[in-house]
Amino acid sequence: MCTDVPALVEAIRSLAVRGAPLLGIAGAYGVALAAARGFDVDEAAESLAHARPTAVNLAYGVRRAAAAYQAAVRDDADEAQAAAAALAEARALHREDAEASDRMAAHGQALLEELLPAGGHRILTHCNTGALVSGGEGTALAVVKAVHRAGQLRRLWVDETRPLLQGARLTAYEAARAGMAYTLLADNAAGSLFAAGEVDAVLIGADRIAADGSVANKVGSYPLAVLARYHHVPFVVVAPTTTVDPATPDGAAIEVEQRSGHEVTHITIPYVPAVGHVAGTGVPVAPLGTQAHNPAFDVTPPELVTAIVTEQGVVSPVTADGIAELCARSRSGNGMLSE
Amino acid sequence: MCTDVPALVEAIRSLAVRGAPLLGIAGAYGVALAAARGFDVDEAAESLAHARPTAVNLAYGVRRAAAAYQAAVRDDADEAQAAAAALAEARALHREDAEASDRMAAHGQALLEELLPAGGHRILTHCNTGALVSGGEGTALAVVKAVHRAGQLRRLWVDETRPLLQGARLTAYEAARAGMAYTLLADNAAGSLFAAGEVDAVLIGADRIAADGSVANKVGSYPLAVLARYHHVPFVVVAPTTTVDPATPDGAAIEVEQRSGHEVTHITIPYVPAVGHVAGTGVPVAPLGTQAHNPAFDVTPPELVTAIVTEQGVVSPVTADGIAELCARSRSGNGMLSE
Repeated sequence: MCTDVPALVEAIRSLAVRGAPLLGIAGAYGVALAAARGFDVDEAAESLAHARPTAVNLAYGVRRAAAAYQAAVRDDADEAQAAAAALAEARALHREDAEASDRMAAHGQALLEELLPAGGHRILTHCNTGALVSGGEGTALAVVKAVHRAGQLRRLWVDETRPLLQGARLTAYEAARAGMAYTLLADNAAGSLFAAGEVDAVLIGADRIAADGSVANKVGSYPLAVLARYHHVPFVVVAPTTTVDPATPDGAAIEVEQRSGHEVTHITIPYVPAVGHVAGTGVPVAPLGTQAHNPAFDVTPPELVTAIVTEQGVVSPVTADGIAELCARSRSGNGMLSE
Repeated sequence: MCTDVPALVEAIRSLAVRGAPLLGIAGAYGVALAAARGFDVDEAAESLAHARPTAVNLAYGVRRAAAAYQAAVRDDADEAQAAAAALAEARALHREDAEASDRMAAHGQALLEELLPAGGHRILTHCNTGALVSGGEGTALAVVKAVHRAGQLRRLWVDETRPLLQGARLTAYEAARAGMAYTLLADNAAGSLFAAGEVDAVLIGADRIAADGSVANKVGSYPLAVLARYHHVPFVVVAPTTTVDPATPDGAAIEVEQRSGHEVTHITIPYVPAVGHVAGTGVPVAPLGTQAHNPAFDVTPPELVTAIVTEQGVVSPVTADGIAELCARSRSGNGMLSE
């Protein structure tokens, strides 16, 4: 439970709160919280927006709630009214995100029907993109759920997603709960699944999409894109339009968060049966003093992305023009991308 | 310590003894052990040879020691003399393996000088292929060590190698001990290293090489081969000629060992500081009942392999003819492949 902004910033940094859409919602509620508690809203917004660098949704959510707060202040609202405006904006974002999930699911399902007319899809996914990262059913996993409900999911292949195992811990949980036929695998085992023809499509989320259509997502996404291309398998990104950052021109301009090597050199064990909770910093799996390279994300260039599915529709092929058109549609639509 | 054959078979199955060359040596010593203890040598050889299915070296080592034993028996040797013959053969194999390491290191180093004349190599490796799998300095890691001694190793990128983390646990240890500049990474992070131009060559070992040049190696090798090809980076396999199995025509004919999903759904923690040894079956990281797909190996087709480095020289390009020539050279040379 986060009752002040520093606690929320820490929850975001430590990934207790994670996943691009949820980060936006959390950022907006964080601003509303700061306003309600009488903290300095500008300072709180600044601190929240920069808690993690890659997911653009975080800054977007913060900005929307802060803008609502400031507009209320400009209109001579008192503190309580301005705080209420920020909270209303956070709730609106939360609701929009849930609606966006539903629309992404519908667009994504239709796209898969078109790409894979034979049905009975075997879908590979990476990291967690479900209800645990969203106000609704999520992004890529929302599409998988829709396909499953339609009786068209033959198998969900769940990458465990090292180093933090979001696939094993979170996606497997959501897949089990939804009653899907799912199988977990070490990320390394995806290659031979492609080679054996066992993957019909890859569906992943995104943390930031640049103006040229480059996609930053959980580390390990780019190798999947290369494997998918090599095996002629569709590689589909599912993300709300809030994930598109027109101010980021291309993949090279995306700042990729580098996280502590400790996440690789140590395994964090939340609970050891028969021992109880193990406090502290995890169990070492590498020699003392080992340095680890631990980027949280990687960047997939647009030429490797078959389609980007958003709540506003599908961009395919993925080009700068297609992204610009999506942004224009979004601005004229529900304003989710308006600055 | 294995004082009988069933204990050695269990050590091989549980990967306490692992790595293709070392499996061959262990198999040969296992036969010698059975002979010395008066066990049924044929039965012991049968059980050892099939302890794991993929690495062809295991069956090769068993066969050599068993053949030496049987030849001694045919020559009217008594039990003790026949056991001594088996032990002598195991020792010969052990010595040959150490010599093969040295020759692979020299051939591999020369190949890298030719492929990467600028020097200062940044080499990515997967799994463990060093002194811990060999009678000598190993296979791929023996090449890396030679490059390091020549002052030409800028960086060794060490894949952690899920699920069993042989890279984090073993290769990092050997790299640290040798004083190399090395960096550990989650297997997922290799993709963006390639994209950033940070990998000059991939060096891996092999568990079986088919007659067409297909290479079975630790799961995760094939995705690296696809990434290397996509980024025009040499992908080099280092293995003794005993790893070549002319009886396996191609990649499809290689039996890939499927291991328990438990290796993926649970993390085995050998030692928890402040708690001590945690007995039992590991810590779950996935929901109860989760099924995992856990192939121990994958197969890389010859067209993705830049070169195969053996103690008999380098095969490049990797073709069925090149492999056949290597086998012929090996038979006429030190007889390591003779049946």
